[in-house]
Amino acid sequence: MVTRLRLDLAYDGTDFAGWAEQPGQRTVAGVVRAALETLARGPITLVVAGRTDAGVHAIGQVAHADVPAAMVADLRRLNGLLPRDVRARDLAAAPPGFDARFSALSRRYAYRVHDGVADPLRRHDTLTWNRPLDLAALRAASVPLVGLHEFTAFCRARPGATTVRTLLALDWAREPDGVLVATVEADAFCRSMVRSLVGALLAVGDGRRSEAWPASLLGAPARADDVLVAPAHGLTLMSVAYPPPDEFAARAERTRARRTGPQSG
Amino acid sequence: MVTRLRLDLAYDGTDFAGWAEQPGQRTVAGVVRAALETLARGPITLVVAGRTDAGVHAIGQVAHADVPAAMVADLRRLNGLLPRDVRARDLAAAPPGFDARFSALSRRYAYRVHDGVADPLRRHDTLTWNRPLDLAALRAASVPLVGLHEFTAFCRARPGATTVRTLLALDWAREPDGVLVATVEADAFCRSMVRSLVGALLAVGDGRRSEAWPASLLGAPARADDVLVAPAHGLTLMSVAYPPPDEFAARAERTRARRTGPQSG
Repeated sequence: MVTRLRLDLAYDGTDFAGWAEQPGQRTVAGVVRAALETLARGPITLVVAGRTDAGVHAIGQVAHADVPAAMVADLRRLNGLLPRDVRARDLAAAPPGFDARFSALSRRYAYRVHDGVADPLRRHDTLTWNRPLDLAALRAASVPLVGLHEFTAFCRARPGATTVRTLLALDWAREPDGVLVATVEADAFCRSMVRSLVGALLAVGDGRRSEAWPASLLGAPARADDVLVAPAHGLTLMSVAYPPPDEFAARAERTRARRTGPQSG
Repeated sequence: MVTRLRLDLAYDGTDFAGWAEQPGQRTVAGVVRAALETLARGPITLVVAGRTDAGVHAIGQVAHADVPAAMVADLRRLNGLLPRDVRARDLAAAPPGFDARFSALSRRYAYRVHDGVADPLRRHDTLTWNRPLDLAALRAASVPLVGLHEFTAFCRARPGATTVRTLLALDWAREPDGVLVATVEADAFCRSMVRSLVGALLAVGDGRRSEAWPASLLGAPARADDVLVAPAHGLTLMSVAYPPPDEFAARAERTRARRTGPQSG
């Protein structure tokens, strides 16, 4: 007998080579799987909503794992087995039909950038930008990017994969401490898409490009070489949205039919 | 000719043996002095408002230094010379009579503690407490500590020094992400005072002590052995308050007359 567990995870991506396991590398999936396998006393497979790149953080990552029904899913024990830079926020039996990756409706990321003197305590999750950034210009240039578009200019090449995505939200705000935060939400992202969008917008924000430039790249047939991929450490996966439980299975079926799966931001 | 500079500093205390210079140790004063001496091309002396202990952070630390009038006080150059875990937020000629230590009216600290699963990105400046904390109990026990008291029970022994202090504020709030933050403000603090007050209050918050217990220790003739000194990494110096510039000199004179000087929290 097997139980499917839903895990809600947060991590500091600084010392990880990303989510996905790679031989000889310290990865988030690697340390989480090892901890779960200690509890399960046997091998398990971990499926994640957002495969974050090296250095990218998460506050609201979601994964699932099928474990022996006899395994005690104790949050405190799991955290006792995890290193300090990964925390399980919740651990519970998943409702029937739940798939962390394919049931997901959307992923929401935040990108933090400071154009003044940043708080040293936040230097691990905040980019420092050496030129002043204009919030109004960042917001204006973001508006036409929202919607269903061909995002090839903002994607790392991946032969055969579609780069059509629905960008549900892209907006900027300045927090009281001066940090600019971009909120970016989509059904799914192609490889390095969030960081490429942010990179293009930063060139608008500091006055080097026009407000119309990022949207002018939509529909381009290849990756735009002059778009900066903003550094990984400013990016955090904030949350993953799911439909009501009775729609999990249907949503997973639709998603599977449409694409090979979401890539990291 | 000499110019007095006011420096506003922020630092991540994790990798420092505190503010004060000690032979063979990496200290905040050591790295700031070294950077200023590169700009000044000669030795300088640094005077600070709050001598933070090892592991304690700062967002609003204030210091002064007397430098050659010819020195170019350029914020960006100074930050270029500082390591990434210390940032100068501001650097400017100080008004006449300004003394970072003796002109100060008060110091305000924040102590961050999480009684659930903490955000791994904030593990460097947030204590994790393994028992649930009652905000109402923390607040109720804090009220009678405010005011002019003999804080010997909460001070590390320092022969001959007074332990009478005016606690101007001590209150707790729970932030949206679940972190409990204590705000503690006083004219000055004796050694380890903020961390001892927080340690005593945490024993109330998790139900091991009565709400009346911390205040019952006021006026005691010696340090209370059963008061936990809360770990350094939860503590951050938030700000230092000064009077209007025309009162700098008078305030400094009064402070010097009264005591040998403020110690760290």
